[in-house]
Amino acid sequence: MVTSIILINAQKSRINTIAEQLQSFPEISEVYSVSGKLDLIAIVRVATNDDLALLVTKKMVDIEGIEKTETMLAFKAYSRHDLESMFSLGM
Amino acid sequence: MVTSIILINAQKSRINTIAEQLQSFPEISEVYSVSGKLDLIAIVRVATNDDLALLVTKKMVDIEGIEKTETMLAFKAYSRHDLESMFSLGM
Amino acid sequence: MVTSIILINAQKSRINTIAEQLQSFPEISEVYSVSGKLDLIAIVRVATNDDLALLVTKKMVDIEGIEKTETMLAFKAYSRHDLESMFSLGM
Amino acid sequence: MVTSIILINAQKSRINTIAEQLQSFPEISEVYSVSGKLDLIAIVRVATNDDLALLVTKKMVDIEGIEKTETMLAFKAYSRHDLESMFSLGM
Amino acid sequence: MVTSIILINAQKSRINTIAEQLQSFPEISEVYSVSGKLDLIAIVRVATNDDLALLVTKKMVDIEGIEKTETMLAFKAYSRHDLESMFSLGM
Amino acid sequence: MVTSIILINAQKSRINTIAEQLQSFPEISEVYSVSGKLDLIAIVRVATNDDLALLVTKKMVDIEGIEKTETMLAFKAYSRHDLESMFSLGM
Amino acid sequence: MVTSIILINAQKSRINTIAEQLQSFPEISEVYSVSGKLDLIAIVRVATNDDLALLVTKKMVDIEGIEKTETMLAFKAYSRHDLESMFSLGM
Amino acid sequence: MVTSIILINAQKSRINTIAEQLQSFPEISEVYSVSGKLDLIAIVRVATNDDLALLVTKKMVDIEGIEKTETMLAFKAYSRHDLESMFSLGM
Amino acid sequence: MVTSIILINAQKSRINTIAEQLQSFPEISEVYSVSGKLDLIAIVRVATNDDLALLVTKKMVDIEGIEKTETMLAFKAYSRHDLESMFSLGM
Amino acid sequence: MVTSIILINAQKSRINTIAEQLQSFPEISEVYSVSGKLDLIAIVRVATNDDLALLVTKKMVDIEGIEKTETMLAFKAYSRHDLESMFSLGM
Repeated sequence: MVTSIILINAQKSRINTIAEQLQSFPEISEVYSVSGKLDLIAIVRVATNDDLALLVTKKMVDIEGIEKTETMLAFKAYSRHDLESMFSLGM
Repeated sequence: MVTSIILINAQKSRINTIAEQLQSFPEISEVYSVSGKLDLIAIVRVATNDDLALLVTKKMVDIEGIEKTETMLAFKAYSRHDLESMFSLGM
Repeated sequence: MVTSIILINAQKSRINTIAEQLQSFPEISEVYSVSGKLDLIAIVRVATNDDLALLVTKKMVDIEGIEKTETMLAFKAYSRHDLESMFSLGM
Repeated sequence: MVTSIILINAQKSRINTIAEQLQSFPEISEVYSVSGKLDLIAIVRVATNDDLALLVTKKMVDIEGIEKTETMLAFKAYSRHDLESMFSLGM
Repeated sequence: MVTSIILINAQKSRINTIAEQLQSFPEISEVYSVSGKLDLIAIVRVATNDDLALLVTKKMVDIEGIEKTETMLAFKAYSRHDLESMFSLGM
Repeated sequence: MVTSIILINAQKSRINTIAEQLQSFPEISEVYSVSGKLDLIAIVRVATNDDLALLVTKKMVDIEGIEKTETMLAFKAYSRHDLESMFSLGM
Repeated sequence: MVTSIILINAQKSRINTIAEQLQSFPEISEVYSVSGKLDLIAIVRVATNDDLALLVTKKMVDIEGIEKTETMLAFKAYSRHDLESMFSLGM
Repeated sequence: MVTSIILINAQKSRINTIAEQLQSFPEISEVYSVSGKLDLIAIVRVATNDDLALLVTKKMVDIEGIEKTETMLAFKAYSRHDLESMFSLGM
Repeated sequence: MVTSIILINAQKSRINTIAEQLQSFPEISEVYSVSGKLDLIAIVRVATNDDLALLVTKKMVDIEGIEKTETMLAFKAYSRHDLESMFSLGM
Repeated sequence: MVTSIILINAQKSRINTIAEQLQSFPEISEVYSVSGKLDLIAIVRVATNDDLALLVTKKMVDIEGIEKTETMLAFKAYSRHDLESMFSLGM
């Protein structure tokens, strides 16, 4: 499983709408609206880098109101939870 | 459930050690070592703000090698997964 | 009581109007127009994180002239004053 | 009443100690440990600019662990609360 | 005497016009067009903080071409000159 | 008269000492300790650019505690005051 | 062979189109769409500095959607591959 | 083939030594010492994300003199060259 | 001779045009289009500060396409060349 | 002729010494100590990119007190002066 975390700045008035659109993508497991200098953080869990590329450079660019994104590849996940099965079994 | 995301910069040589220490805390459900300008991202899932405060201002400060942290409160989670039960049932 | 401090940059010509609008919200106890690189600072005192989320991601986004906000959750308040009773009793 | 808000970055391990020291000064009505890119925010309420100057350039400089401060003068306070009497009556 | 120094970025083509407007305000004793990352620096000398607040949040906001301002309160003036009498006697 | 404005960041504990040293230089007419992201602002009034160069690259470098300086040449002064005579007549 | 690396920020919706245009220039051997704070990175391999200048200040400026570029000259290449022959032989 | 580009700031006196060490790693196909705000740029070409993670979070951290790194995953390569065969055939 | 160096950011498509306009001013001895985060660097050699002020705050502001300038006064020139005679004799 | 401009930040107390050392290098035609956020600017005029590389990555790194450098390649020089002959003829 390829995990990626995307930091997002967006138009304040469209934060909720954007979050709903993002979480409707199968590649995205969770979206959080957050305090601080960012507006949204999306957690991406996909099978391959190409899926991640498709999401970031194609699917997300059509979402109105996203002003800035910074995509980070997760090198390694550390958790007592079995994230792979949790999220791949559609839990 | 109070969710928070912590962006972390750390000494390169201690990234793995720090990640192991962080994920051993019950408050932290996942830690990712990441590409880009950050080194680690921790996902915190706790019952109350006080639990979050205790983690950030007490427990984390004793971890050697953390250079900078930025804690963000999640206002709202958007997900098709039932995150509350997934993570609170110890899945 | 959940306390939060919001740093705000706004259009110079609307600073006073925005401050009046913000302080009319029950969630906001004080607003200050300030010197320095910011324009306004709002002190939020609410019962739950959801109240804070509603204020930041819904109510505040309709205020014209706000250019940038940075919301910070107060982990802990240190004061010889009994802030909880002062502000919750409508003092 | 001259109100000022001071944004503070401090050594993580001394945040609580510093907050206690700051709130012991009569000039400071509240100190908050906060999430985000800052560590502490202090609300100063004094009679004159000289009191503020004394606090910032003399009294605070002796506090160990403060790394960076940014002091902002409040031009005007907007609140349904009578802040002047609340804080000057030692409430 | 309350002294304040305002750092100003402005539209290049309006620098001279803005400087003339600023120095026409009684609150402003000197304006300098400067080299470096700023465009103008204004020295404010007034009787009270309220005069300063009125200048910054009301009078200056109507000046066309000002892009960014950063107002700093002078805690203390150090000079062999008797600035208070020099500037208050209209020298 | 060549006027220059120097923005200074300094060790908090040495702000007053540094201000006294700076204002003792004949080239410097006023020094202000200030709120905001800076610590001190010095106003330099000299006869030639060489005097300014001598001050900045020789005399000031020996002052202990100055962490960062940014020197700006004033292209033009705008004031109803006759600054040239005020400061050159030792007023 | 003169090698240069160009860091590019571009309109999200035109990333793929821009990459195709860039890689069609003979001066550019590879273009990568990337994660992180940048959008594209182009590797330039040309015979002379003038070829590099022509590319950056003439040919690239006509490409719609490029928001910011930062061109860096490679002083020296370190590789076990014979880059010069690889890329100049049209491999 | 997973391609990644790493932006590196390093101690000036160790730039050449670091570049030699980096290019000796099989994961790294080229290293360039560059003009501008960076010092080195490494091009990584590996089979899997795990290889990239091992390089960045383990192998590179032991290299003395690296001050800051920013690793970017290449989503897609655009080139008239057959990069995959060029670099995987040890050309 | 008063020397000044001006760092310039400009619209990419107008870099050459702007450079030609700048070098046509008698105050400017050389203009370079450059790699890196800037676009142009102009070397100014004039008789007095007033000439420099006139160039920066009047003549240059009419040039279309200049987005940002940062003017730096040269305190002292260090060179084995006799710059004063080279440039003042129209060499 | 390959021209390059190097922006330099240095320890204040060593600015003059560093400038003398830099201008003693045959590759460097002029060095200026400057006002503003930088300390020194060096103009490099050499025959080849390799000469520039040798200067920046070898010769300059031994100079004590240089804290940060940013080297920019001049793509094109615009001047009514014949810079090539002026500086290559040792004028």
